[in-house]
Amino acid sequence: MSRSPLRVGLIGSGFMGKAHAFGYGAAAKVFDLPFAVELHTLADATPDLAARAARELGFANSTADWRAMVASPEIDVVNITVPNALHKEMALAAIAAGKHVYCEKPLAPRARDAQEMTEAAEAAGVKTQVGFNYLCNPMLRLARDMIAGGELGQIVSYRGVHAEDYMADATSPWSFRHDPQGGGAFADIGSHALATAEFLLGPITRLLGDTVTVIPDRPDGTGGRRPVEVDDLGRAFVRFAGGASGSIEASWVAMGRKMQHDFEVYGTRGALLFTQERFNELHVYSADDAPGRRGFRRIEAAPDHPPYGRFCVAPGHQIGFNDLKAIEVAGFLDALAGQGPEPFGFRQGWRVQSLVEAVHASSKAQAWVDVA
Amino acid sequence: MSRSPLRVGLIGSGFMGKAHAFGYGAAAKVFDLPFAVELHTLADATPDLAARAARELGFANSTADWRAMVASPEIDVVNITVPNALHKEMALAAIAAGKHVYCEKPLAPRARDAQEMTEAAEAAGVKTQVGFNYLCNPMLRLARDMIAGGELGQIVSYRGVHAEDYMADATSPWSFRHDPQGGGAFADIGSHALATAEFLLGPITRLLGDTVTVIPDRPDGTGGRRPVEVDDLGRAFVRFAGGASGSIEASWVAMGRKMQHDFEVYGTRGALLFTQERFNELHVYSADDAPGRRGFRRIEAAPDHPPYGRFCVAPGHQIGFNDLKAIEVAGFLDALAGQGPEPFGFRQGWRVQSLVEAVHASSKAQAWVDVA
Amino acid sequence: MSRSPLRVGLIGSGFMGKAHAFGYGAAAKVFDLPFAVELHTLADATPDLAARAARELGFANSTADWRAMVASPEIDVVNITVPNALHKEMALAAIAAGKHVYCEKPLAPRARDAQEMTEAAEAAGVKTQVGFNYLCNPMLRLARDMIAGGELGQIVSYRGVHAEDYMADATSPWSFRHDPQGGGAFADIGSHALATAEFLLGPITRLLGDTVTVIPDRPDGTGGRRPVEVDDLGRAFVRFAGGASGSIEASWVAMGRKMQHDFEVYGTRGALLFTQERFNELHVYSADDAPGRRGFRRIEAAPDHPPYGRFCVAPGHQIGFNDLKAIEVAGFLDALAGQGPEPFGFRQGWRVQSLVEAVHASSKAQAWVDVA
Amino acid sequence: MSRSPLRVGLIGSGFMGKAHAFGYGAAAKVFDLPFAVELHTLADATPDLAARAARELGFANSTADWRAMVASPEIDVVNITVPNALHKEMALAAIAAGKHVYCEKPLAPRARDAQEMTEAAEAAGVKTQVGFNYLCNPMLRLARDMIAGGELGQIVSYRGVHAEDYMADATSPWSFRHDPQGGGAFADIGSHALATAEFLLGPITRLLGDTVTVIPDRPDGTGGRRPVEVDDLGRAFVRFAGGASGSIEASWVAMGRKMQHDFEVYGTRGALLFTQERFNELHVYSADDAPGRRGFRRIEAAPDHPPYGRFCVAPGHQIGFNDLKAIEVAGFLDALAGQGPEPFGFRQGWRVQSLVEAVHASSKAQAWVDVA
Ligand SMILES: NC(=O)C1=CN([C@@H]2O[C@H](COP(=O)(O)OP(=O)(O)OC[C@H]3O[C@@H](n4cnc5c(N)ncnc54)[C@H](O)[C@@H]3O)[C@@H](O)[C@H]2O)C=CC1
Ligand SMILES: NC(=O)C1=CN([C@@H]2O[C@H](COP(=O)(O)OP(=O)(O)OC[C@H]3O[C@@H](n4cnc5c(N)ncnc54)[C@H](O)[C@@H]3O)[C@@H](O)[C@H]2O)C=CC1
Ligand SMILES: NC(=O)C1=CN([C@@H]2O[C@H](COP(=O)(O)OP(=O)(O)OC[C@H]3O[C@@H](n4cnc5c(N)ncnc54)[C@H](O)[C@@H]3O)[C@@H](O)[C@H]2O)C=CC1
Ligand SMILES: NC(=O)C1=CN([C@@H]2O[C@H](COP(=O)(O)OP(=O)(O)OC[C@H]3O[C@@H](n4cnc5c(N)ncnc54)[C@H](O)[C@@H]3O)[C@@H](O)[C@H]2O)C=CC1
Repeated sequence: MSRSPLRVGLIGSGFMGKAHAFGYGAAAKVFDLPFAVELHTLADATPDLAARAARELGFANSTADWRAMVASPEIDVVNITVPNALHKEMALAAIAAGKHVYCEKPLAPRARDAQEMTEAAEAAGVKTQVGFNYLCNPMLRLARDMIAGGELGQIVSYRGVHAEDYMADATSPWSFRHDPQGGGAFADIGSHALATAEFLLGPITRLLGDTVTVIPDRPDGTGGRRPVEVDDLGRAFVRFAGGASGSIEASWVAMGRKMQHDFEVYGTRGALLFTQERFNELHVYSADDAPGRRGFRRIEAAPDHPPYGRFCVAPGHQIGFNDLKAIEVAGFLDALAGQGPEPFGFRQGWRVQSLVEAVHASSKAQAWVDVA
Repeated sequence: MSRSPLRVGLIGSGFMGKAHAFGYGAAAKVFDLPFAVELHTLADATPDLAARAARELGFANSTADWRAMVASPEIDVVNITVPNALHKEMALAAIAAGKHVYCEKPLAPRARDAQEMTEAAEAAGVKTQVGFNYLCNPMLRLARDMIAGGELGQIVSYRGVHAEDYMADATSPWSFRHDPQGGGAFADIGSHALATAEFLLGPITRLLGDTVTVIPDRPDGTGGRRPVEVDDLGRAFVRFAGGASGSIEASWVAMGRKMQHDFEVYGTRGALLFTQERFNELHVYSADDAPGRRGFRRIEAAPDHPPYGRFCVAPGHQIGFNDLKAIEVAGFLDALAGQGPEPFGFRQGWRVQSLVEAVHASSKAQAWVDVA
Repeated sequence: MSRSPLRVGLIGSGFMGKAHAFGYGAAAKVFDLPFAVELHTLADATPDLAARAARELGFANSTADWRAMVASPEIDVVNITVPNALHKEMALAAIAAGKHVYCEKPLAPRARDAQEMTEAAEAAGVKTQVGFNYLCNPMLRLARDMIAGGELGQIVSYRGVHAEDYMADATSPWSFRHDPQGGGAFADIGSHALATAEFLLGPITRLLGDTVTVIPDRPDGTGGRRPVEVDDLGRAFVRFAGGASGSIEASWVAMGRKMQHDFEVYGTRGALLFTQERFNELHVYSADDAPGRRGFRRIEAAPDHPPYGRFCVAPGHQIGFNDLKAIEVAGFLDALAGQGPEPFGFRQGWRVQSLVEAVHASSKAQAWVDVA
Repeated sequence: MSRSPLRVGLIGSGFMGKAHAFGYGAAAKVFDLPFAVELHTLADATPDLAARAARELGFANSTADWRAMVASPEIDVVNITVPNALHKEMALAAIAAGKHVYCEKPLAPRARDAQEMTEAAEAAGVKTQVGFNYLCNPMLRLARDMIAGGELGQIVSYRGVHAEDYMADATSPWSFRHDPQGGGAFADIGSHALATAEFLLGPITRLLGDTVTVIPDRPDGTGGRRPVEVDDLGRAFVRFAGGASGSIEASWVAMGRKMQHDFEVYGTRGALLFTQERFNELHVYSADDAPGRRGFRRIEAAPDHPPYGRFCVAPGHQIGFNDLKAIEVAGFLDALAGQGPEPFGFRQGWRVQSLVEAVHASSKAQAWVDVA
């Protein structure tokens, strides 16, 4: 019984373009996918870039004309891994052509663009996905299930951080990530922290933001310097619908940090600690353990924690970052096949974008804002 | 050449009363103190309590009349380790009698009380100390020196936490720590986090608070329940005079945490990580290390980090919590002997109290407040 | 310019069979391989097993006749991932047919079989590889380079461990891993510890072993119990040609351990600590750091540490276990293309097997043995 | 009800002399001791050394004549903290004078000396203690109780290490620790590792040693170099009467290690991990935890773990190295008062010394030796 083909068109072949290509490759091996994936066409900014990347990443065809590609009847799903400002136009074109769309985060520079994309997709009846890969970690799913299952009692407080240092060097140049329209640390990686927070604890209802620009200008690539208008770091107080309070922090100038996507969850019966720096582990405290025997328990990822067992039948061997992308791909394909809901569709991408904007608006107004 | 005696009167013999007594004992052994310490009189609420504690803790005399004790010409310094609401009256009486005063934190329930105590002490010319023992850690001194010496470049951001779980159990009764006048998690332990933040980075100039009551009422000791008006946890955004931004968090309902007095400091050339859970270590990142060889370095407390060497000539053997109190005692005695400034006098205790109140006021007003 | 095809035949589709298939898949995406890999045929014990695995793992054909497959002119390289006792016959057949052979560890139950395989391969001029995947870790390469480059001074001592708990349960049945011919913990995973030790420090010259059977019999699958003659754990003292002394330990009954492939290396100027439990990190101590600033530095895998950058352009994102296999595949293919030496050929597999046998012989004789 | 006095005479005031003095001081505060301790006389090599140390450490008298001191009717207990070679003569003199003796480890350079001391003490009916301070850690007592109580099932294997780097520098001079008579790393700190192993698992019955001299000569203090005949590091395989096998390692040339007194205990139902580097923690794995929820649990020292609560009523605040010595003192005084057995008397010190000698003899003979 043969599976129907799924023909993928990818736009962009940088950091994330590669991760998507790797993800499709690994997912096809590791999971029992509902489709036979064909890496059909890779589009990039120039014919040369596209051709070389297609060869390297195993796409059959290449093009510098993404419009033609998304319109082509030979493409079933469009992956968008280009700078944020381009997401909307590409996604709308793909949706208009009836294609499923799998777009990197943040979904669009502005929440209202994300909304437009979401509504267009829903009207067209196509399926969508946004690349919040950290949520694909088996240990985050374990965390969410423990919380939802009441293993920690009622959740009282939350601390979420996403900090790295890739912008800590003041000589690293102005880039699309500094675009006043939708750029900045909170949009770029705070979005991951917000997505994780809601993934674990459910909706945030109110927040109060505080964002800061640390490095006021950066090399503009032509010998001069260009002012930076976006945040290098930011913080937010939050309230969850479930009653807990918390904080979220984002920084791309956290010298020494390469991947501090961390959270701490405190409940009335237990607690969870996690850091992406050691993302195959979840640390769990249970007040129900015997007196004198309580402590944070370091649970290592194992076949007990799906879909870890797909990658390795033995516990503790560990999955890597690209494996998270493979899990993301597999979840989307299941949704395309009607075997499950979209794990993190455009509506959720829009939601995260709304939260990011709320952080900025609140920071500017120096006041709490509702985000229910 | 014999040292002049220093006759100590201690009021209170609970958790901190013991710690002070241990601190004097250890300091006398470990340091070359400028005085011959005499544990002269211990005062407690009842004659029995006082007598038993005096015997256990090595005080020559005991009394239930603290007023007589602080007035006695046989006492040189008064240590106050009773519930917060009593600090002021006792301190003012001791000051009036010309005694040096060493009082536990928080200095007083209200900042204006702390101010009154500070001004009284300064007017009387007596020396004072407030028990911010975590600041006495050699690794915190190392951290402060590294920051001040520019080893991390310009400081950009800060995250400080003090979280424990001693109030996480909703059945644990209402206590002086819940007194609407000056109680709550931020006053009780957030004060430590604030003290550490300013110790390391210098003055905070503005802040925005967010405090929360998690457990609305507690057993009142007579079979009923008493409403809790104070915060069980709280957070603040801060700005430092030096330009950095940061956050401070306090919680006494952080299930599983016994002593999470943590900080992270990020600068333009390096970073520091610390947790009181492993307080004989400081983790340091330097951007000046060779490429491919950078990472957080786990420095273990050693004779290189004064006054560790007073306790042990060998590195890595570790000091304990009570040793912090011994260092605190020694610093105060040096100040009494004119051999150094008061490490953390009433003025600083007042300062911390002002910050705590600012957090609460700001939280209520939902607005930034200046604390310069 | 198109790459010539490399047609892979895989025998076995269990734990390691899958890992090889995943490895080829990922390597083809991640690396710039010198060949166009074709997953040509998968052979397993029965036609059904083979067919299902071929479908799942992306092989074009399947067979239950591995002899036919290794003889087929359509196959260029034979991967052997079946139980140890079968390695030799299959490898010799493949070599006889002029195929390159990539065989799982341990190469063969007895060193003399491994020798025969090695000599046959060398006589036939085919290339070989043994699956010591832990050596493919960028952090192990960093460790080796630091040692070889003298960054730690002269190496003085070594401690190597490989401990897991997959045989800790006395009710887990007798399996090929208990075969008196070449089975046991030291052969199964001590071989990894030995391979790592020589990878880092160069040849062992003498050793003294001590092996122990902990669980004397196991379920035989037919309701009875079968005696276990092999070691459940073992230890060895070792001497390296470079002058260092050390120890190696292996255990498959180390309750709680899932992947304790650890080492500690001490030199006259520095030290290294590593655990496979957090295998994207290497901890480095340098006596050349400034006094008061020394400590073990946690280096996180980054593009500075090839070939990490192939998987991810950003530091700290982490590779997983299957990625180690992809690196292994890529190294072998480079060797096949004449672009480098065989990373860990049969000669090295034979070497490790000789060491394992020396541990057992020494343990039995209770005496040091030379292994130069 | 007043306690009878206990008049202490201390010989030696270096690293350990200070630790004993601190220990008495802290014990008197922290514990409800059965005696009123008087630090009566401190003896050191010269009158000046003795006088200065007595003043610093709070002894009433000082002397350069230890013989007079141990003979004095004013002394009840003699503490010996001088180089190893002097222990025997001093202890025998004290015993002859009917004094209780509290001697640092190793008890004597040769086991037969330790035997003579033990037999003399037992014949004289005096009580004795040897300074194995690491055994006084509440977390080690917890570990021992968990093992003895069967919480880990049957113990299968053990790994014990004591490694530091205080002799790693080849320019650090020849000292009493290099005395061919009873010196060397295994005697100096391997003795701690052996004591801990038997404390936790009970008697060792057989062992096989392997000791190594790394730095062949050291500065002799007069400009020349003196050959080193003792071990800089060593290892032993061991068997316990209870059936477990294990290994013990000692090194004083483990660059970067300041206090690696570590152990790992594996049983059929659980496991323990411990490192003195973080000695207020014990890590416990239980196979009885729920599937998918198992992991090593970090238990922090708390009042649940006596006698931690003596030092601090709150969990997680941590005790320090000197506090271990206070616990040691208290245990000895309880024994003197007939309120408990000697925690680690001369018989145990002799036992450890026999094990150290067995390691050396076995290493020389390259053969297993019985130590039952
Ligand atoms: N999920 C995650 O953890 C991460 C997500 N991202 C997201 O992925 C997206 C891309 O970021 P990176 O891969 O880091 O950027 P990148 O700069 O590495 O790659 C961008 C790619 O887009 C191509 N491109 C640019 N303009 C184009 C055009 N007009 N037509 C076709 N191709 C064009 C570039 O040539 C390049 O191949 C962003 O939205 C970013 O926020 C990035 C990193 C991590
Ligand atoms: N520096 C630090 O880390 C800590 C500081 N503290 C501070 O220490 C102070 C005391 O707290 P704890 O020792 O935990 O309280 P506690 O309840 O353990 O002890 C209080 C003591 O004060 C005595 N007392 C109460 N009323 C008295 C009166 N009228 N006259 C004489 N004695 C009286 C009690 O009998 C008792 O001995 C507080 O200000 C608290 O904030 C407490 C714990 C840690
Ligand atoms: N490099 C590493 O870290 C690891 C290496 N290994 C090694 O891999 C080898 C296989 O071990 P696992 O994959 O764990 O075993 P497994 O039991 O999971 O798989 C063995 C495979 O061989 C097949 N097979 C058995 N007899 C066969 C025959 N006569 N013809 C064709 N196929 C046959 C089985 O059907 C099965 O597909 C062993 O040599 C083992 O030592 C295993 C685990 C980890
Ligand atoms: N329990 C533990 O963890 C440790 C135990 N030790 C043990 O403690 C003992 C002493 O070692 P350290 O304190 O490190 O040595 P140290 O060199 O620091 O002190 C030795 C002291 O003995 C004095 N002394 C030497 N000859 C003397 C004599 N004839 N009469 C009177 N006093 C004399 C010295 O002046 C000095 O005060 C040794 O047996 C050592 O093995 C040492 C360190 C740690």
